[in-house]
Amino acid sequence: MKVKGFSAAAVQAGIRYRDRLDLGLIYSDRPAVAAGVFTTNKVKAAPVLLDIKRLRQGKAQAILVNSGNANACTGEQGMELARSVSGMAARQLDIDEELVQVASTGVIGEQLDAAPFAQQMPALVDSLSEDGFDDLARAIMTTDTVPKVVRKTVDIGGTEVSILGVAKGSGMIMPNMATMLCFVVTDAQIVFPVLREIVAVGVEHTFNRITVDGDTSTNDMVLVLANGAAGNEWLDEDSPEETETFTRVMHAVFQELASMIVVDGEGATKAVTIRVTGAREKEGALDAARTITNSPLVKTAFFGEDPNWGRIMAALGRSDCFFHPDRVSIAFDEVVMAEQGMGAGPEAEQEAARVMRKDAFTLTVHLNDGTESAEVQTCDFSKEYITINADYRS
Amino acid sequence: MKVKGFSAAAVQAGIRYRDRLDLGLIYSDRPAVAAGVFTTNKVKAAPVLLDIKRLRQGKAQAILVNSGNANACTGEQGMELARSVSGMAARQLDIDEELVQVASTGVIGEQLDAAPFAQQMPALVDSLSEDGFDDLARAIMTTDTVPKVVRKTVDIGGTEVSILGVAKGSGMIMPNMATMLCFVVTDAQIVFPVLREIVAVGVEHTFNRITVDGDTSTNDMVLVLANGAAGNEWLDEDSPEETETFTRVMHAVFQELASMIVVDGEGATKAVTIRVTGAREKEGALDAARTITNSPLVKTAFFGEDPNWGRIMAALGRSDCFFHPDRVSIAFDEVVMAEQGMGAGPEAEQEAARVMRKDAFTLTVHLNDGTESAEVQTCDFSKEYITINADYRS
Repeated sequence: MKVKGFSAAAVQAGIRYRDRLDLGLIYSDRPAVAAGVFTTNKVKAAPVLLDIKRLRQGKAQAILVNSGNANACTGEQGMELARSVSGMAARQLDIDEELVQVASTGVIGEQLDAAPFAQQMPALVDSLSEDGFDDLARAIMTTDTVPKVVRKTVDIGGTEVSILGVAKGSGMIMPNMATMLCFVVTDAQIVFPVLREIVAVGVEHTFNRITVDGDTSTNDMVLVLANGAAGNEWLDEDSPEETETFTRVMHAVFQELASMIVVDGEGATKAVTIRVTGAREKEGALDAARTITNSPLVKTAFFGEDPNWGRIMAALGRSDCFFHPDRVSIAFDEVVMAEQGMGAGPEAEQEAARVMRKDAFTLTVHLNDGTESAEVQTCDFSKEYITINADYRS
Repeated sequence: MKVKGFSAAAVQAGIRYRDRLDLGLIYSDRPAVAAGVFTTNKVKAAPVLLDIKRLRQGKAQAILVNSGNANACTGEQGMELARSVSGMAARQLDIDEELVQVASTGVIGEQLDAAPFAQQMPALVDSLSEDGFDDLARAIMTTDTVPKVVRKTVDIGGTEVSILGVAKGSGMIMPNMATMLCFVVTDAQIVFPVLREIVAVGVEHTFNRITVDGDTSTNDMVLVLANGAAGNEWLDEDSPEETETFTRVMHAVFQELASMIVVDGEGATKAVTIRVTGAREKEGALDAARTITNSPLVKTAFFGEDPNWGRIMAALGRSDCFFHPDRVSIAFDEVVMAEQGMGAGPEAEQEAARVMRKDAFTLTVHLNDGTESAEVQTCDFSKEYITINADYRS
């Protein structure tokens, strides 16, 4: 599947390691409507600061991305470097520098060297190809164990529109290798305000609902470029039905990439969906789901395949969610472990332990106090997580 | 060192495991002034609910404590059990049942059996002794590797006053074995409002400033009993100087027990003090210190002896503390790793790595933005933590 007008490439630039793809480029043959969502961390990497500024125009034509160095906590020199390498790409591509977005992932706090970028830029642009996205997905991996690419097509008023997304991330922030990155390209013809809304809402319900370790990175970003090459009828305020269809598929791309990140979580052996239902307020349900999800004790119990609902109650109890302890029920998939805040007995426990042996399952916490709910995806917390994060840099 | 009028004992009741002390009793030969601080978790164990109610009178004479079962998430039946076992102790001791405080630690969500209490109560009361506190400290251990007892004396207006504290805890909440428990007895003569204030302030600055894994238990409690047997001049509103002296020593007992808990943190190999200074507001400094302290990535870096200041910046950046990223400096003991938000170079890094090889060190994050500061103590996050918490119940 191709996305009309888009190409990509990756090369070995030796930014931190030799003999691996570490510099990538995504290019559209025409300026694309562009929207992004960036890290909420108060410490923002230089490329993030640059991209936010440039994206105010709602357009972009290229994304230059490197792994091996996050260009974060690098001060004015780091900003200068980000501008400088984007200029190299712009000149080589013969496009406006303001249309180049820059992304970095890797070690925080070290200055990034411009030399490998200068040296490899001609080769990088030369190798741009419609089939280059798999290479690009590899070039942005750090502790990821698999490249993450999702392709979908959608019929918009008789015209086939393509969407392709690549992502990286296996801790919300990597050890030194910071970051979740996601780039999505589509040949859909869409107006900026509509795209911006689709991206903002989609990120909130997909990427913002996964967690590996509760940490957020200085470099996180989701960038979406839509270049209109499919020639579909414009997706705008006057096409609610087609926009709805497009939104559904775009969000499915987000969701699949987000799930791939959780499954590939650092040291993860299981994917777990945590659903809090029957809450009085939406916000409370989400806070409860997140607190349970980020509890190291709950996550180590997932790893140990121990249906330890006491830890879940304890995590719930320190969340900001209102609930009555004696109304709570807890289930692993369809096996109810606790009801009215009390255990359902040893048989239920054995059945729940069987559920937990699966690679993926759902934990449902029903508060029986209202109609609101929220869902978060996570992985377990294994010995391997500690190994990866304790030994990574040394 | 004895504390006049106080005795303690422990027996093997077989509540969960055989051949280990698991039922303890602390007794004062006269009603003591008593103050306590209890878990803020919305899910409170039955003994916690009972103790809070009884402590309203500001008096207690005995503490009955068991390990092996937390009596948490056990509903009305659990409340009934807590009342019932306190009644057994009261009858055996021939004191008012309302003067018995109850504490439990262990598995959450299983009903506690009254039979072992009934069977062992005569032997428990018979073996009360001034020297029984070491046994009691053992009886309340769960994943703790060492019993935790601190003894101090203090001169109050020419009279020697004694303070003895015992504590347990090695995760903020244990796997199934929930809880931090701390019992302090003193023969000081002190009025209730002054004792209550000393305890509340002391807990806030000691036990509330340590963290192992960011989880809080359903059973946490600090109970302080002062029986006046030393016969010192009353510590009250009219003796500010003596009260100040007594407070200092009482808080030192709290601090030593709190430090012992961190050092004995589940799987811990290092004790780390995290100090945030130069903050605009006290609250922000504390939030920043806690966010850094609870970051799994920061704690695994401690375990890996990796002076990974990028992770510290990233954790700081997601806290609620206001700061300017380009003013932050970070030091391990006296070795400055980062200044003005940027790295201080490879030499500083090597020196910092040397600091991290120590069993204990201080991480200082200077925001250079004000005069407020806060300090939190923690331990590192090791493979052993995962082993303990994944394998504990199975």
